[in-house]
Amino acid sequence: MIVCRTIQELKSALGERASDGKSLGFVPTMGYLHEGHASLLRKAREENDVAALSIFVNPLQFGPKEDLDRYPRDEERDLAIAAECGVDVVFLPTVQEMYPGRPLTKVIVDEVTDRMCGASRPGHFDGVGTVVSKLFHLLKPSRAYFGMKDAQQVAVIEQMVHDLNFDIEIVRCETVREPDGLALSSRNVYLSAEHRSQAVRLSQALNLAKEWLEEPGMTASGLKQRVESHIREADQAIIDYVELLAYPELSLIDEEARLSSYNGTVILALAVKFGTTRLIDNRLFETSKIGGGE
Amino acid sequence: MIVCRTIQELKSALGERASDGKSLGFVPTMGYLHEGHASLLRKAREENDVAALSIFVNPLQFGPKEDLDRYPRDEERDLAIAAECGVDVVFLPTVQEMYPGRPLTKVIVDEVTDRMCGASRPGHFDGVGTVVSKLFHLLKPSRAYFGMKDAQQVAVIEQMVHDLNFDIEIVRCETVREPDGLALSSRNVYLSAEHRSQAVRLSQALNLAKEWLEEPGMTASGLKQRVESHIREADQAIIDYVELLAYPELSLIDEEARLSSYNGTVILALAVKFGTTRLIDNRLFETSKIGGGE
Repeated sequence: MIVCRTIQELKSALGERASDGKSLGFVPTMGYLHEGHASLLRKAREENDVAALSIFVNPLQFGPKEDLDRYPRDEERDLAIAAECGVDVVFLPTVQEMYPGRPLTKVIVDEVTDRMCGASRPGHFDGVGTVVSKLFHLLKPSRAYFGMKDAQQVAVIEQMVHDLNFDIEIVRCETVREPDGLALSSRNVYLSAEHRSQAVRLSQALNLAKEWLEEPGMTASGLKQRVESHIREADQAIIDYVELLAYPELSLIDEEARLSSYNGTVILALAVKFGTTRLIDNRLFETSKIGGGE
Repeated sequence: MIVCRTIQELKSALGERASDGKSLGFVPTMGYLHEGHASLLRKAREENDVAALSIFVNPLQFGPKEDLDRYPRDEERDLAIAAECGVDVVFLPTVQEMYPGRPLTKVIVDEVTDRMCGASRPGHFDGVGTVVSKLFHLLKPSRAYFGMKDAQQVAVIEQMVHDLNFDIEIVRCETVREPDGLALSSRNVYLSAEHRSQAVRLSQALNLAKEWLEEPGMTASGLKQRVESHIREADQAIIDYVELLAYPELSLIDEEARLSSYNGTVILALAVKFGTTRLIDNRLFETSKIGGGE
């Protein structure tokens, strides 16, 4: 496994490992790897000649009041996990290496970023689009792997890749969960024991929603109310948003129409704070299957 | 020469011509080729294994009141010129091929676009950055060739390539001129005989500026006044802007300081309308050479 800290080192490592039309599978991360990341790395390893990982806590995607400074880091452990997953090349740049001088160029995706985390975290997805464009240009992957826990991020990257004709396949990967259902996240380490036990209500609500959806006449607005009530039973939970939107467009659907009459994929997406820790989770539903007696 | 009208055709043509680590020189244009474009194509031909040309009148870079609909086109002549210059691959997509569905992603370069044509044509450079990103992803050139008549476009593309880590060398190419000095432009065909003869004042002013710069104590503001007066002697000329800025940053320089005390490259840039036809021209100066008795 070659660990590269500069763009120069990365280019020479890729020249060595990824030449001659070999396929390259790429997993961009902010580090502090967990089993969710490991599942992406194993998939990248399995489906490509070369597997590459980047670890970069990107300042551009953090708001001024967000957790950039305290974002958890553990390079040694990350490299051990990467090696175990069979990664060939790790790119671990400094902020100075990625942004020498003030960056003036932004890659901005409209509409898909209007709601959910795009509304709660203004500028966040501009930072994501910009850094992912940079990493795509630096690594030139054939395929890039993203976890569906960040479903809006996946929608934004897919739209960007489509609109700008990046010659890269975006691979959606399923959210990995703790045994009780909590979606894995590097931010879970922030949770106190009490918050950790209450946080299970997010995934519970998503599972219950699957059943609520089957009730005759259920609407988007009715479903969101049920989800919100279920989460509010955790007394420390502060709901940032509960949204039901078309996926991957992330456009509004008729709040009062029967969901069974909507034809397409919808996402039920949650962002909930426990203390200063903000958790997100989501689940996709095929509305054509509602009442289909799966 | 392979002429491709779809992305699919382009991919198969590039697969055929540009495989195995061959270098590809790319000239993106809006067609209606003139000797300026031909000089770029010959350079791309000379310096690379494969030479590619794109012809696409990009709606995204035209304002709502601009000349998109009447922009001149002559595909047959363009293809003859391309063949003569030894082009291997021509990409001639439709608007539908380049923008299927509403594009939601924009590549935006700040600051470098604040002045000159960026100020006169709001949104223009967002359209340029976006379409050039798309073409770069589709053609994957080693080098891309741009004429310095569009000096701000060159500055914007260079900044974008730097900020987003495109692995592409941007080659600045000198402006090609008519015998009397008028910079070649596809838009010159719009000019009436009278406007055409008055239009020579743009390049004249840029040449005179070289002498005026040598006068002791000459300032940016003094130089611009001289240039404006010279152009105004053409009674049909309507000045859009005359600017003297640091290049390629396109940042302001002290208007009242002696230019000989400024250390760096400056651009003297003009945009002038004759009737409904807007012409641009510019010249770079090394201020360190002022008074150096070249």
